[in-house]
Amino acid sequence: MKFGGTSVADAERLKRAAKRIVEKREAGHRVVAVLSARGKETDRLIADAFEVSPSPDPREMDMLLSTGERVSCALCAMAINDLGHRAISLTGSQAGIVTDTSHTKARILDVRADRITSALDDDNIVLVAGFQGVSTAKDVTTLGRGGSDTTAVALAAAVGADVCEIYTDVAGVFSADPRIVPDARKLNVVSFDEMLEMSASGAGVLQLRSVEYARNHGVRIHCRSSFDDQPGTIVVSEEDTVENPLITAVTHSTGEARVTLLGLPDHPGIAGRVTTTLAEANVNIDMIIQNEPVTADAKADMSFTIPREDLDTAKDALAALAAEHGIEIRTDESMGKVSIVGAGMKSHPGVAAKVFTTLGEHEINIEMISTSPIRISCVVPGDKVPDAVRALHSAFELSGPDTIRPEQPFGEFA
Amino acid sequence: MKFGGTSVADAERLKRAAKRIVEKREAGHRVVAVLSARGKETDRLIADAFEVSPSPDPREMDMLLSTGERVSCALCAMAINDLGHRAISLTGSQAGIVTDTSHTKARILDVRADRITSALDDDNIVLVAGFQGVSTAKDVTTLGRGGSDTTAVALAAAVGADVCEIYTDVAGVFSADPRIVPDARKLNVVSFDEMLEMSASGAGVLQLRSVEYARNHGVRIHCRSSFDDQPGTIVVSEEDTVENPLITAVTHSTGEARVTLLGLPDHPGIAGRVTTTLAEANVNIDMIIQNEPVTADAKADMSFTIPREDLDTAKDALAALAAEHGIEIRTDESMGKVSIVGAGMKSHPGVAAKVFTTLGEHEINIEMISTSPIRISCVVPGDKVPDAVRALHSAFELSGPDTIRPEQPFGEFA
Repeated sequence: MKFGGTSVADAERLKRAAKRIVEKREAGHRVVAVLSARGKETDRLIADAFEVSPSPDPREMDMLLSTGERVSCALCAMAINDLGHRAISLTGSQAGIVTDTSHTKARILDVRADRITSALDDDNIVLVAGFQGVSTAKDVTTLGRGGSDTTAVALAAAVGADVCEIYTDVAGVFSADPRIVPDARKLNVVSFDEMLEMSASGAGVLQLRSVEYARNHGVRIHCRSSFDDQPGTIVVSEEDTVENPLITAVTHSTGEARVTLLGLPDHPGIAGRVTTTLAEANVNIDMIIQNEPVTADAKADMSFTIPREDLDTAKDALAALAAEHGIEIRTDESMGKVSIVGAGMKSHPGVAAKVFTTLGEHEINIEMISTSPIRISCVVPGDKVPDAVRALHSAFELSGPDTIRPEQPFGEFA
Repeated sequence: MKFGGTSVADAERLKRAAKRIVEKREAGHRVVAVLSARGKETDRLIADAFEVSPSPDPREMDMLLSTGERVSCALCAMAINDLGHRAISLTGSQAGIVTDTSHTKARILDVRADRITSALDDDNIVLVAGFQGVSTAKDVTTLGRGGSDTTAVALAAAVGADVCEIYTDVAGVFSADPRIVPDARKLNVVSFDEMLEMSASGAGVLQLRSVEYARNHGVRIHCRSSFDDQPGTIVVSEEDTVENPLITAVTHSTGEARVTLLGLPDHPGIAGRVTTTLAEANVNIDMIIQNEPVTADAKADMSFTIPREDLDTAKDALAALAAEHGIEIRTDESMGKVSIVGAGMKSHPGVAAKVFTTLGEHEINIEMISTSPIRISCVVPGDKVPDAVRALHSAFELSGPDTIRPEQPFGEFA
């Protein structure tokens, strides 16, 4: 069981999470629960750091931020003990989560779950501080924002859990953001591949790395609300999904920026230097387009999209290259992206055409396009994103009761 | 160097502590600094715990409270890195502080300082989270309130430090509380034994256990202000003090409660049962008086003092015994205690008489008395404590410039 920051934000919610954990134990399950830092605690600690230092040391940032989840776990253990059950809290290090030494964005190398399993054998409920581990250099590390999902999935894999339940403040994974599409449908089941594409293209409910980890280790995720007992969304491997709908969901993001480089000299390797420069500055390029020059001595143009918060970093990184070659840099901070995701798309041509037609009918300009076998993404003007989401959701008939897919035979979740 | 909670309470003070640590490093010293939790952080965490649970589990309380010092250390390390020096923060566990398993009041069993010494060898400033360790069962433990002083002294002993500097919000150890006696004198040197008696009888500046640890391991303590560069008070073994004044200081406490048991049956062991009962309830008796019965069938009375916060616990613990033997329990919550401490007292008779005469002249009733070779303590009504402190401070001529003792040859502190 994994509880996010809003689910443990105050004493009342924390006690509710404790009760929920105890109910699961009393139903006969052995329980490991991963907790995030409470409410705005991580933001508060980050603010404290920047009050002291303009560029906090990453190792020390990890030492600082890792305290938030420990507080949540200790408090929750107290609440569970009061309910007549035995609970112990463990830090990421005590839980055996071994990472590399990349502070603030460490990757899990190994999970040595002996202490967890022996505590479970002693009839304890085990609470583990999410988002953190201990590096091979024995320093405290953190896994980056949203890392508690990854902690939960990694522990589920290590102890061979039946299911990894992610409790959040939404009821599950939806066919679109319900704030934009009020009749969006809660999905009962999605495949890992679909969920990966959805997380990567803007669905905030599950962290991308945790879904990757779950797919690689075959961990069944159940994403559900911490405020009621309704089943949420099960994420499983494709062979476990009963049927593949054409389109599963429409996702979007509004945090895109476009950078256009005008007048690139036409010699080999220049595009490579641009992308290498950005990679070295830790800027992830999403989509990229290059216009070939028409004549031999002409110059080329290149456009790409990046997360808006990386725009200043990207401009700084490219400044020297641009000056050297007389390249003009233009930027547009107000771009958005709308994507449709569906495993059934693979076997149905014509989906892309329907997307383009639909957006065209709504007079939404498509600036850039990228696709995967189960996803089509279009960069559109930021202010057109809500219209685009509603148009595609309607065109692919994604609304309706959440019983379009047959119920899955998942025991307690059925 | 050890910095208390007020010395790291906000960003400005924390940066000042960082600067102070760096100055020490730049003067050519290798530095290990122990930090407390910031300002009211520990109180805040305790309040969070009691909001969740009426009786928080001690193991989880330690997991919770230990985060406060980690936050201080991480932030201070960031500030030091910004000043161009390398600093790393260590948890109590990482610093090798091994304790027993008595959660919330653990005792240090061993200090395995290898990681500290190798970090010092790598030219790091080492910051250690005070007040905490790791138990032999690999759980996080805390050393009880004021435990950061003990951490500092224990580390000073383990790494063979020249001195353990305790930075606080006062200028050192005074001949009396300056809030009560404005012309109290700052003491340049006190012996371990004197400091032990002073800490035990109300001087709040150094925690009793840390002084014990320093005496047992021969660690020289320098207690000084974190707000200026003036030398403070050196605590050393008696042979290192140049002369022993008759009286060194007057200490006091106002948090005493008196319990009187009326009508104790005169059979052997009843006093023993009273004290055993209180010990089992973790109530420390300070002074104790028993009136012998005059005739063979008469009953005895017994009075003792305890910390006021333990009064309810004591009454609950004694209730059954009192009912069984028809003992009446009377309590007085408003008692205080005034003590004079001085290593020279041993060789000078007549000190006690002067104390009693002085208090008598000021019409202050002495309710109970206890003594050690270098201390005389009197329980007096709580509202008379300030008068009693001033009267004794004046009678023993403790005021005056702080040069009454010759300056000590302590290198940088001279």
